Amino acid sequence: MKYSFGIDVGGTNIKIGLFEVDPFRLVDKREVSTPKYNHTTSIFEVTKKNMTDLLDLHHITYNDVHGVGFAIPCPVKNGYVVKCPNLKWESLDVISSMRDLLEPHIKVVVSNDANIAAYGENYSLEVPLQNAIFYTLGTGVGGGIIIDGKIVEGRTGAGGEIGHMQIFEHDEICGCGKSGCLEQICGTKAILDYAKELSHEYESSIDFKHITVKDVFDAAKKNDPVGFRVLDRVAKYIALSASILSVSLDPDIIIIGGGIAKAGQILIDQILKHYRVFARFGTVDIPFVLAKTGNDAGIIGAAKYTI
Amino acid sequence: MKYSFGIDVGGTNIKIGLFEVDPFRLVDKREVSTPKYNHTTSIFEVTKKNMTDLLDLHHITYNDVHGVGFAIPCPVKNGYVVKCPNLKWESLDVISSMRDLLEPHIKVVVSNDANIAAYGENYSLEVPLQNAIFYTLGTGVGGGIIIDGKIVEGRTGAGGEIGHMQIFEHDEICGCGKSGCLEQICGTKAILDYAKELSHEYESSIDFKHITVKDVFDAAKKNDPVGFRVLDRVAKYIALSASILSVSLDPDIIIIGGGIAKAGQILIDQILKHYRVFARFGTVDIPFVLAKTGNDAGIIGAAKYTI
Repeated sequence: MKYSFGIDVGGTNIKIGLFEVDPFRLVDKREVSTPKYNHTTSIFEVTKKNMTDLLDLHHITYNDVHGVGFAIPCPVKNGYVVKCPNLKWESLDVISSMRDLLEPHIKVVVSNDANIAAYGENYSLEVPLQNAIFYTLGTGVGGGIIIDGKIVEGRTGAGGEIGHMQIFEHDEICGCGKSGCLEQICGTKAILDYAKELSHEYESSIDFKHITVKDVFDAAKKNDPVGFRVLDRVAKYIALSASILSVSLDPDIIIIGGGIAKAGQILIDQILKHYRVFARFGTVDIPFVLAKTGNDAGIIGAAKYTI
Repeated sequence: MKYSFGIDVGGTNIKIGLFEVDPFRLVDKREVSTPKYNHTTSIFEVTKKNMTDLLDLHHITYNDVHGVGFAIPCPVKNGYVVKCPNLKWESLDVISSMRDLLEPHIKVVVSNDANIAAYGENYSLEVPLQNAIFYTLGTGVGGGIIIDGKIVEGRTGAGGEIGHMQIFEHDEICGCGKSGCLEQICGTKAILDYAKELSHEYESSIDFKHITVKDVFDAAKKNDPVGFRVLDRVAKYIALSASILSVSLDPDIIIIGGGIAKAGQILIDQILKHYRVFARFGTVDIPFVLAKTGNDAGIIGAAKYTI
């Protein structure tokens, strides 16, 4: 029996998943705090220690470990990170850093967390597809693009940063330093701001003092005038951006994930309504589905990526 | 010595190029009229006849032919064309149609002409790159996307149709049936219309009665107020669309070809001026170059595609 680890490294927590490779299944997982100091060494040491604990617990040795996959919250190219503010990494070779702690037969791979989630989602489909576009909608809007079964990492690791497509006219500056980004109209902040703005115009059941995205979308499901308009605007711009990517890449599927996608099928339905207006040629029939792997997307994708 | 053919099939002419495979070089080429009747058989018969003539002329036999590559003016997926108005083809298996006329050792491949041009341009670079985006600017605006050294054909063959990215607000309907397409602001018609529109506002040396795109861009080079504004608008929207594709795919290079690209370096310079404002993250440094293969892009790319 062979095993792989999927490691999802965030600024707050590190998730460590131990997976059987074939058939692919989660054996066990745990979550630990991301170390606060010496990030360039301690993140790998803490990861290794918890990997060892998980193996011991299940009476598995490193001889049976095939690979370790990392999902990290920044661009990465050929295992090399130029700058990762969330993890306080600069000019770091992630693959070498982990390999130094492991036996040489163990494969180490790494990619950006949204790319890894895209990979995991695609390979969690009943029949994995060759070409897929994945959106992750949350505080930030990100994504991942799979072409020919592989992550499109790009020249500098910026592949799949679809939340920063310039998609509308906007005065405010985005976190990326530019403006008019998809994230600025479909991210959490934009959703809450727009709901508050509409509250001056329409009656609503939403409690605007303690408003969350969930409240807005729950209201949308009940046809609340504010909730529905907010959901509709998000759906419209996701659809517009998807139509642009579709006429360029003509993917087999578009997968919608991230916290905001918890709105569920109503979001997909509303995206499709707009998408059918925007879409060109045969791309009008591309299916949209909700992501399935949820909070485990990072560890599942990272472990899959080692195979 | 091995040889391949590159066949560029257009509505008016068929270009047939005979190439030595290694080192890759053009041996001979010819251009014949596209047959007017029985398109589903006669195009292949005329092609075969001219291939045979070229081989005879150079004392080569079909034993030494490695492959035949086709560039065709419509979407194609796995060799199959649903509809090709320019060639009056419907539900046609291009690969089988040609294979039936050839000895079984000869490989037959086919792709959309803009995709093939993208492939040819990329493989004509001093060092071919893994990921490239190619624009072909002319009456229509098209393109091709190369990822991991391969053409992105997509689910239905619509991959690379970047001229139909929805990039601005527009009232008129594009040939694709939608509106706001890049082609509607950067294609020949848009260029000539905009120049005429500006002629009411600015002094210009352009002869608006017999205006061509070349006149407009020649005037731009002399800093003509109309010519320059038209060139600048084309450059701006190419740059905007390129920034969207770049933040999604982060390619190694962006290649600008087609008749409009004959404007030359001034077009590249102006695109870059706008691109640097639009581009996100490390994609700001992606190089833009002019296409090199010109009118032979189709036959070069198609022959390369057999290898």
